[in-house]
Amino acid sequence: MEGKTEKFPVIRIREEAREEKEDLVIRESPLTIFLNGQELVTLLCTPENLKNLAAGFLYNEGILQSKEEIEKIVLDEEKGIIWIEIKGNKDFVKRLMFKRLITSGCGKGATFYNAADKISSRKVVSKITVSSREILSLMKNMQQQSQLYRVTGGVHSAALCDNTDILIFSEDIGRHNAIDKIFGKCLLEGIQTDGRMIVTSGRVSSEILLKMAKRGIPVIISRSAPSNLAVNLARELGITLVGFARGRRINIYANDWRVSDKET
Amino acid sequence: MEGKTEKFPVIRIREEAREEKEDLVIRESPLTIFLNGQELVTLLCTPENLKNLAAGFLYNEGILQSKEEIEKIVLDEEKGIIWIEIKGNKDFVKRLMFKRLITSGCGKGATFYNAADKISSRKVVSKITVSSREILSLMKNMQQQSQLYRVTGGVHSAALCDNTDILIFSEDIGRHNAIDKIFGKCLLEGIQTDGRMIVTSGRVSSEILLKMAKRGIPVIISRSAPSNLAVNLARELGITLVGFARGRRINIYANDWRVSDKET
Repeated sequence: MEGKTEKFPVIRIREEAREEKEDLVIRESPLTIFLNGQELVTLLCTPENLKNLAAGFLYNEGILQSKEEIEKIVLDEEKGIIWIEIKGNKDFVKRLMFKRLITSGCGKGATFYNAADKISSRKVVSKITVSSREILSLMKNMQQQSQLYRVTGGVHSAALCDNTDILIFSEDIGRHNAIDKIFGKCLLEGIQTDGRMIVTSGRVSSEILLKMAKRGIPVIISRSAPSNLAVNLARELGITLVGFARGRRINIYANDWRVSDKET
Repeated sequence: MEGKTEKFPVIRIREEAREEKEDLVIRESPLTIFLNGQELVTLLCTPENLKNLAAGFLYNEGILQSKEEIEKIVLDEEKGIIWIEIKGNKDFVKRLMFKRLITSGCGKGATFYNAADKISSRKVVSKITVSSREILSLMKNMQQQSQLYRVTGGVHSAALCDNTDILIFSEDIGRHNAIDKIFGKCLLEGIQTDGRMIVTSGRVSSEILLKMAKRGIPVIISRSAPSNLAVNLARELGITLVGFARGRRINIYANDWRVSDKET
């Protein structure tokens, strides 16, 4: 918990009885990314796995394609600054980012699903299948790992999984950050994402769905609701989209053929 | 519901029994804002009250200060485009926006709380008080009004309230949009925000808290968790921050003196 929460005195009123107690609140810290010496973006995030977050952000935004392009990553945790040097034409990156920023839903969690995204989002062809039992068991495991959620109620969690196990677990104040941290770790440590599944506590919007397509994830499982744009994209891109995975029930919104009723 | 949801065939598996049914999914639509002829930003949102959303976005981002600055708003709902003409130096607006975008947490719901925000966020001095009963009753009323949530599970709701009533109710796929729609309506229709309260289903991050400060809102009530940055800002800016308002319980994180145990 240390570093990821802050303790506050809180007044709790229950049935009109007032008591003073202490409460752990999730920490929200700015992380400013400098790309090749230029200030690029400031993310508000839970201060943990910040190299993964920055790498995952650049990877998912299409600025970074492979680990080999990274020349240096220097993190100043105290100041909340990370410097990343990457190979390639810096002007191109600048122009790209400027264009994305201007045409994107900045500050409101809303990158617009544009032509470029669509082109770079290939159809996912994996033949893996998963049972509803396995889906619910993965969701349960993820929730059990989310200590920060139990203590603060203020984070989203996400996990990269195979049929039986959680391979990478991640939590963050932002549902996008939690997923970016996973893919950043995969990029930096050479962990395969193709053909693996993502489990998330958060809603599945079009942007989340497109991240799955870019990383070759054939199955996304959420505790929450999808949007219609996410459902339509999942159908188009061959991704199995499972929502409302709670208790003993799931809803399959797209490509239900991957959910078999038999154990795999 | 019409226009705000899309119907899909869904496979529901419960206790390993598979059934096909229809499900209403929340609609996520792009809205591109053109400011004085220039493409500014694309928000992904629930397609309802789009003029309020666009006006509220510009208002909360500090680009627009009053209704009088607006010369024209033209909405093409079908294309998802809104054109807004405002008075004043356009180059200044462009520079301001560019700077904000570059230094802000774009696409990830993360505008960085910077010096400029802090300066424009005056301390809220309202002397209003509210009882815990009133708080819980307002939260309950808001949830009862949220038809879209009950049907789709995929939206956030927000409301501008006085001690006893909901004055403006709003829902959207994004928690920021839901709040921007409220303040946009206030701007366009000359509705006072000073000294009134906001109730929200969403988590209270620093950005949400700063929106309260800018609009002179002395009390924010959330069903969910706050972040440490939001708690610290609320204390500094004189805002009463109530979290986890559920059932018969509330937590007060800042300025608890406004929550009286007596009815007002």
